[in-house]
Amino acid sequence: MSQSWSAKIIGTGSYVPQQILTNKDLEIRMDTTDEWIQTKYGIKQRHVAGSNDNISSLSIGAAKRAIEDADIAAENLDLIILASINRDVKAPATACFVQAELGATNAIAFDMNVGGCPNSAYALLTGIKYIDPFRFKNVLVICTEIYTKFIDWSYRNTACFLADGSGAVVLQCCEKKEGILGYDFGVNGTMAKSAWWPTGGTLGTISDNVEMDGKAVWEFGHTIVPESIRNVFDQANLQANDIDFYIYHQANVNIIRNIMDILKVPQSKTHINNDRFGNTGGASSLIALDEACRQGMIKKGDKIMFVAYGAGLAWGSILFQM
Amino acid sequence: MSQSWSAKIIGTGSYVPQQILTNKDLEIRMDTTDEWIQTKYGIKQRHVAGSNDNISSLSIGAAKRAIEDADIAAENLDLIILASINRDVKAPATACFVQAELGATNAIAFDMNVGGCPNSAYALLTGIKYIDPFRFKNVLVICTEIYTKFIDWSYRNTACFLADGSGAVVLQCCEKKEGILGYDFGVNGTMAKSAWWPTGGTLGTISDNVEMDGKAVWEFGHTIVPESIRNVFDQANLQANDIDFYIYHQANVNIIRNIMDILKVPQSKTHINNDRFGNTGGASSLIALDEACRQGMIKKGDKIMFVAYGAGLAWGSILFQM
Repeated sequence: MSQSWSAKIIGTGSYVPQQILTNKDLEIRMDTTDEWIQTKYGIKQRHVAGSNDNISSLSIGAAKRAIEDADIAAENLDLIILASINRDVKAPATACFVQAELGATNAIAFDMNVGGCPNSAYALLTGIKYIDPFRFKNVLVICTEIYTKFIDWSYRNTACFLADGSGAVVLQCCEKKEGILGYDFGVNGTMAKSAWWPTGGTLGTISDNVEMDGKAVWEFGHTIVPESIRNVFDQANLQANDIDFYIYHQANVNIIRNIMDILKVPQSKTHINNDRFGNTGGASSLIALDEACRQGMIKKGDKIMFVAYGAGLAWGSILFQM
Repeated sequence: MSQSWSAKIIGTGSYVPQQILTNKDLEIRMDTTDEWIQTKYGIKQRHVAGSNDNISSLSIGAAKRAIEDADIAAENLDLIILASINRDVKAPATACFVQAELGATNAIAFDMNVGGCPNSAYALLTGIKYIDPFRFKNVLVICTEIYTKFIDWSYRNTACFLADGSGAVVLQCCEKKEGILGYDFGVNGTMAKSAWWPTGGTLGTISDNVEMDGKAVWEFGHTIVPESIRNVFDQANLQANDIDFYIYHQANVNIIRNIMDILKVPQSKTHINNDRFGNTGGASSLIALDEACRQGMIKKGDKIMFVAYGAGLAWGSILFQM
């Protein structure tokens, strides 16, 4: 059985709130130091939502840039996928507000969520699976997160790295020889409580804290994640150094550096920007992709390994050609 | 360009909480009458979640029945899509807890939402688009809603019809000649506030009330929804009476009866069960599908028009062969 088309990225965009919070600012709010945060995570500062910033407004900021980069009209969008833990309101989906604001009158729209950090890979895969030459020729994928409106700033375990932002891409239907070269995805729901936010639902628990078993997540990042990437190498019949560039979820500079070392790929083949943006959940890998494209680190025709992982526990690795 | 496979439904399931609330019970809680609710909506009673019921527990109840009906092992599931306005916790997705509980170790999992009532059509379409003969051979689609843990029972406008429940289907990859015969979907985000729940998000508003512009939604149900169904007739080159059975979102008996009249199809070709279950959002149409299959109203080979619509405003019509 076969399918005669594929999907390719034709535009990227990102958007972060104006307000910046440095590690020095955090020293006042929690028992931590600039040096400790930099050493442990690589983060120097992060952007945080102001009172007028919402999931929809950040999403629209990133989406407009991606649409402009793709050089298509909003009316040509057929689907808007918005991935986030959060939302403007319970219903309808924040994607519906974004659809209206963009004037994407022909697009259907929905929100989705796996668990924050892995959202970019899952939203991209969902967009790729929707793409066809009939009803879904152009798909806008947005990942946005606003953690800082909800978290307790004295809970240093995770408040020291969480941040706000949005990243977006436009996918377009293309011929089979371009596009998606392979992917590997997995979920281990038995580890769901290793990185969770036990609030805001029918369980009835209330918490301002994203809770994380740091050791479990560290081990996960060093075993399952590189294994997932290697599965994609095998699928595509390529080796680590055949890949032109690697984009990772920007949780922690040390995990990214270690994965590159495990794969025996030079550190110059990835882009790390969490020093400026912190951990913006699912948005982080799309913001990194957007910067890498706009700064010329990624060129047309390059093979890109895109990797996101985290709460679920969930992981996803996609190999695509620009 | 072409694709050599399609998707078919191989199992259905549903599950509702034990506790029943009749219209007579509601007369004590709000200024309404049994007669008014029955005349306006067709509802006599609804099932409501107890303190131990969660989005995950209802979902697992429906999922287990659908998997049993499909006669496959949980390990053969490749993807779990859970559509709901609500969730157990903010992160990870409730679908991850369901994956763990079912032992669906090979399935990836995510939550999605359009706006409640249309969720079944959107989750089904997403499942259909994921289906392939490679990585996603079997997909579990679940729609679950728990409204009654959150709503203000004195707000009669919508509290009189909202209810809790879950419906599920298992989709499987099949040959092109079976499966999906057509679909039509649309979103009008400029009407987002015609049916919304302005709470639980970055907007910061807090409300126990699902707010609805009844006139706008009534008009929407009588114009755009039948038009969407007719678009699918045209796609499939079929007429209204070529369809064996119609399954609708169970909002209101009068809207369903009117749509059947507009299409000039006998009322015997649909199944209405909101007299017993109320409006369970996205779950309602899947619960109706499950009952219609189990009670022999739908048989193998039948052409089924599945229609869901509501908050977004969003609508979706799918024509499939059982």
